[in-house]
Amino acid sequence: MGHRFMGRAHSNAWNQVTKFFDPALKPVLQVVCGRDEESLRAFADRWGWEEIATDWRSVLQRDDIDAVDIATPTHLHAEMAIAAAEAGKHVFCEKPFARSVSEGQAMLAAAEKAGIVHYLNHNYRRCPAVLMAKRLIDDGEIGEIYHWRGAYQQSWLVNPQHPLDWKLRKATAQAGPLWDLGSHAVDLARFLVGEFREIDCRGKQFRSERPLAEDSSKSGQVEVECAALMTGEFTNGALASIETTRYATGRLNHHTFEIYGRKGSITWDMEDMNRLQFYSGKDLPDRCGFRDIIVTDRLHDYVGAWWPPGHIIGYEHGFVHAAVDFLDACAAGGVVSPDFHDGIAGLKVLEAAAESMKSGWRVSLAS
Amino acid sequence: MGHRFMGRAHSNAWNQVTKFFDPALKPVLQVVCGRDEESLRAFADRWGWEEIATDWRSVLQRDDIDAVDIATPTHLHAEMAIAAAEAGKHVFCEKPFARSVSEGQAMLAAAEKAGIVHYLNHNYRRCPAVLMAKRLIDDGEIGEIYHWRGAYQQSWLVNPQHPLDWKLRKATAQAGPLWDLGSHAVDLARFLVGEFREIDCRGKQFRSERPLAEDSSKSGQVEVECAALMTGEFTNGALASIETTRYATGRLNHHTFEIYGRKGSITWDMEDMNRLQFYSGKDLPDRCGFRDIIVTDRLHDYVGAWWPPGHIIGYEHGFVHAAVDFLDACAAGGVVSPDFHDGIAGLKVLEAAAESMKSGWRVSLAS
Amino acid sequence: MGHRFMGRAHSNAWNQVTKFFDPALKPVLQVVCGRDEESLRAFADRWGWEEIATDWRSVLQRDDIDAVDIATPTHLHAEMAIAAAEAGKHVFCEKPFARSVSEGQAMLAAAEKAGIVHYLNHNYRRCPAVLMAKRLIDDGEIGEIYHWRGAYQQSWLVNPQHPLDWKLRKATAQAGPLWDLGSHAVDLARFLVGEFREIDCRGKQFRSERPLAEDSSKSGQVEVECAALMTGEFTNGALASIETTRYATGRLNHHTFEIYGRKGSITWDMEDMNRLQFYSGKDLPDRCGFRDIIVTDRLHDYVGAWWPPGHIIGYEHGFVHAAVDFLDACAAGGVVSPDFHDGIAGLKVLEAAAESMKSGWRVSLAS
Amino acid sequence: MGHRFMGRAHSNAWNQVTKFFDPALKPVLQVVCGRDEESLRAFADRWGWEEIATDWRSVLQRDDIDAVDIATPTHLHAEMAIAAAEAGKHVFCEKPFARSVSEGQAMLAAAEKAGIVHYLNHNYRRCPAVLMAKRLIDDGEIGEIYHWRGAYQQSWLVNPQHPLDWKLRKATAQAGPLWDLGSHAVDLARFLVGEFREIDCRGKQFRSERPLAEDSSKSGQVEVECAALMTGEFTNGALASIETTRYATGRLNHHTFEIYGRKGSITWDMEDMNRLQFYSGKDLPDRCGFRDIIVTDRLHDYVGAWWPPGHIIGYEHGFVHAAVDFLDACAAGGVVSPDFHDGIAGLKVLEAAAESMKSGWRVSLAS
Repeated sequence: MGHRFMGRAHSNAWNQVTKFFDPALKPVLQVVCGRDEESLRAFADRWGWEEIATDWRSVLQRDDIDAVDIATPTHLHAEMAIAAAEAGKHVFCEKPFARSVSEGQAMLAAAEKAGIVHYLNHNYRRCPAVLMAKRLIDDGEIGEIYHWRGAYQQSWLVNPQHPLDWKLRKATAQAGPLWDLGSHAVDLARFLVGEFREIDCRGKQFRSERPLAEDSSKSGQVEVECAALMTGEFTNGALASIETTRYATGRLNHHTFEIYGRKGSITWDMEDMNRLQFYSGKDLPDRCGFRDIIVTDRLHDYVGAWWPPGHIIGYEHGFVHAAVDFLDACAAGGVVSPDFHDGIAGLKVLEAAAESMKSGWRVSLAS
Repeated sequence: MGHRFMGRAHSNAWNQVTKFFDPALKPVLQVVCGRDEESLRAFADRWGWEEIATDWRSVLQRDDIDAVDIATPTHLHAEMAIAAAEAGKHVFCEKPFARSVSEGQAMLAAAEKAGIVHYLNHNYRRCPAVLMAKRLIDDGEIGEIYHWRGAYQQSWLVNPQHPLDWKLRKATAQAGPLWDLGSHAVDLARFLVGEFREIDCRGKQFRSERPLAEDSSKSGQVEVECAALMTGEFTNGALASIETTRYATGRLNHHTFEIYGRKGSITWDMEDMNRLQFYSGKDLPDRCGFRDIIVTDRLHDYVGAWWPPGHIIGYEHGFVHAAVDFLDACAAGGVVSPDFHDGIAGLKVLEAAAESMKSGWRVSLAS
Repeated sequence: MGHRFMGRAHSNAWNQVTKFFDPALKPVLQVVCGRDEESLRAFADRWGWEEIATDWRSVLQRDDIDAVDIATPTHLHAEMAIAAAEAGKHVFCEKPFARSVSEGQAMLAAAEKAGIVHYLNHNYRRCPAVLMAKRLIDDGEIGEIYHWRGAYQQSWLVNPQHPLDWKLRKATAQAGPLWDLGSHAVDLARFLVGEFREIDCRGKQFRSERPLAEDSSKSGQVEVECAALMTGEFTNGALASIETTRYATGRLNHHTFEIYGRKGSITWDMEDMNRLQFYSGKDLPDRCGFRDIIVTDRLHDYVGAWWPPGHIIGYEHGFVHAAVDFLDACAAGGVVSPDFHDGIAGLKVLEAAAESMKSGWRVSLAS
Repeated sequence: MGHRFMGRAHSNAWNQVTKFFDPALKPVLQVVCGRDEESLRAFADRWGWEEIATDWRSVLQRDDIDAVDIATPTHLHAEMAIAAAEAGKHVFCEKPFARSVSEGQAMLAAAEKAGIVHYLNHNYRRCPAVLMAKRLIDDGEIGEIYHWRGAYQQSWLVNPQHPLDWKLRKATAQAGPLWDLGSHAVDLARFLVGEFREIDCRGKQFRSERPLAEDSSKSGQVEVECAALMTGEFTNGALASIETTRYATGRLNHHTFEIYGRKGSITWDMEDMNRLQFYSGKDLPDRCGFRDIIVTDRLHDYVGAWWPPGHIIGYEHGFVHAAVDFLDACAAGGVVSPDFHDGIAGLKVLEAAAESMKSGWRVSLAS
């Protein structure tokens, strides 16, 4: 369901997964859903979908459908995921998970009741360099973590002509970069460091009016923040600093993190996603420094399935990695992470941040 | 023809090209050829080839084949390309072009006699950052070029256990990194700077014996150089420095170039292939410096067909870009570059370098 | 006054200033003050001070002293600066300015009453690359500023054996990295962006006990924070993110900033202090990117007085640049920035941050 | 002797050496020599030279002079150094050593006959990062060396208005970048890798006429090459690639090297001189990469005498490091490297390269 940017990235993943990997199940691209029949037909022809449908609910009733991939705007996730679960279909759901914790909880309840596999597509978790960071942490190379810094900086709203699209309206997007980009940053923080104990957030609107998407001679109100800065603390005592913005001129998809621990440190930048910077305190003191690891070796997760060392992979490959694990989970009836539990945990942080953005107070995340 | 590393990269290109681009012809993956039926069958199943064949010559006689993709070791290129041309098939040929200029000339003669489309797959020409370099040069941003430096550094032979494979034997590979890596470096030099007037080359064997691939308890003689350093001059007066090696510890696929011109300069590194460094002498003198251009915009060649700005592409995407242009040329009966003319021009430089490597003299490339 | 790390950096500045610059007054290194006569004598001999004194108050009464350089721990600044001003001496004062706004106000009052030149040594303002950033902002190359990020990351407290020195006690240092490093970050923020409207701060102690400096078999309580994270807003609407820490493994003196504006962006890193990264939105859209400006040209501030372009300067050179401006101000009876006004303005931000660190609330900086 | 760029760098070194180090002898800046009395007087006043002299020969006869610092153009080195040696003065000589091997041999003969300390100022040998490279090699971290690449790229001749100064005339400079920059590159190659067995060189003039320095309305012939590219081989079997140019737009003082060995690799860039990139093959294979070592620690050579870790030093500091070793050698009657033996060894390589540049043949360096 959904056939634009994310629809393409997802369709590509389903096509590529059996070429480079050996999932336990082979996906069949049976039906693609959308609203506009003409563009949907062209999309299906291009990507190899066998059928199209404009009524997604009817598709859920079909016996020949085992899994549903939801790649629609945020506000549609809950309705679709719940219906899919009730129909007994496994769910592969694009992020941000939902508009609220309560929506997310309903999604999880439906999934658990149905016993389906549920996956939330925070694709960066399956970037080989991010998995290398995880491996270093799990190996004890970083030790007690003192600092997490996650920044996700884009610049597409600097242009005053950018229209008031669905990402700028509360009803469809819930929030601005806090939801869209912050959900990624929070997910990686939880994946690599742990759960949050407390958060605060400061938001800002740099521009409050924009031309309407449907009629650029008129303008409307931007309903979400333009940037959101958070600080917080993890339950393990580490400090968090998170920055999300759509106003960082010169930054395109600048998703970065820094982790400083007692024994070592790590930094990463999505725009240079095949590399990881690692500082080991175990190196001899006259010859220590951040190492520029090119994460393209057979020894690294997933990436050995592609090309020889030094031949980099791109943005879309993380989706293929997710596809293989999702398919394996469907075959085994198992779990795949992140899932709807992670979605709820992430939303709790974002909701607390949103509350802090309004009140100006720190918000505790009682477990 | 050929189904290992290059077979995968090529098959992927034929699959992906219609997803992200709109070539004038849609490729049908009809027959894949190879020697081992079992592995070939598995390969065909994985990549969507409809049939397999172990006798490539018989395939060339089929009427339902319009084009042939040659992804075999170097020494097979001439025989296959000539037979394909004689059968009236368009040819997409992997590099290095051939073992010698005379082999290449026979290939070109056959291709021209048959009036087919012939393409030589120097894939780096279609890396968007390389095309951005070309655009800057063509726009006059670099001006008269003083220096070209091309280096292609790998490290896979540092391991003394690496066996004596086909790339280390003269009969199959003709030469070592001079042919394998040097053909790329020379192709980019010709693409971006111009024709060579003179070349000299110094080669070196760091290790002369290696275990046999077929029986590692025995060893055999390495028949090609381990590294080759060239200097030369272009017909337009620019100096060239070219380095190719398989003994650069820490370098995986470190293919770089530097261009210094009167008005500006450019540097590029394949391991960071989505970026181009550009120095413009037109910038105000207190604020000039090498710019780190992230070549992922709709305005850049090919890359806009993939993902939004800042979402990088990987190694295999250049093959897809080649596929679209090859298909368009087949439809139009036109030409696509680089072609066999380029192959011959490149081989002339490599043969002159090989001669210099033996004699120790500078070799002139009279036109 | 003071003859350790800062004493050396300051003495060097007074020696070097007349070699590379032409200040309106030539400094005479008349008396150096300290507590331990023996080490003070050695220091004076090494650096060319003509006399030593252990009673700094008596020195202030001498007629042959025109200016006083205060390079002592923070808690001594106010007493010394006020006495110096009352004695009619110009004051060159090391940072952090003082323990509190009220101390600072007393210092300023004394200075203004006496009509002396007062300078506060935030040395990074005179790093040529920082001045280049200022020039770009003043030239309108950045436009309306959306984001300021200042981070000052060190790692010397990661070692659990580091003793409880004066920088870890409240009475001498007032606070931890908030005061020591944050004063620099806030000063650069004020220099480059403007005044703060609001601030909040989150502090953390990662280790609360350390061996005593005087007896390492005993331990005592760390009285200051180990790290402090701030977010805030400037009066011009820009957002601020500031991070200071002594627990960033692998970072030595990692003082960085990022500025994102409507027309362009800037980043800088003190560990690579001769360079500035500048993104100009005016560059053609297919060839824009962060430029790596090597700030070593005659056209750049101060640095042309040293060596030819490309020959970098080091940490201590900023102190020399401060010395020349201070001497010129003494000659002219003028002002030099930053001065005690800036010291107070900076302390207001730090005091508000300290208050927020305790209360958890955002603190407004009413003017 | 000599009081311009190098005169300043040398005078600074003699002033600074006793501040930051404890040489066995304290230098007294007794007499500075030059041709123009007026500018010489100003120079002496600024830098603390006690006397000036326009007849350097007479100064050599004085008993109160122990050592002579030669910072003049190349063609004057031999005459001055020989006279100084004959007068029994220790000699600190700026590079390039001399115009020819035979000049250099006469210099060495005089020095050895007199039993003086002789030092040749290849200042980059005492850059802490270069010494760290030497330490890694000596520790066996690199192993058998396969490749040395040294490049020294500047751009000051790209400007067609740059006049025909002494560096562009054969009588005063002997050669172009081959001598000026190549002497540095060859010295580092010899310091870090070993002696050369064979060399070849390709030179080029990009512009043959330039305005006269004395009358810019007239022009004259450039008598030296604009760029020189060398390849060669060391006696230990490593390959060498050396590039020197004054036409690399965007490069100011871009002096770099790359060393690839069996166990590890190193790269360095003078424009970022406080860092060294080190790849260790001993790191675990999934986490190896080039380490960015910030060479500013107490454990590193020389640099601990300056500032705390992370506080970088600049171009001139290498001269101070040379001064301390020269003074210690004078006190002990010992040797300091590089010395005139190194000067001759370097000139043998440069003369062979110059011969190759003319003949187009490889030139053997028989020992």
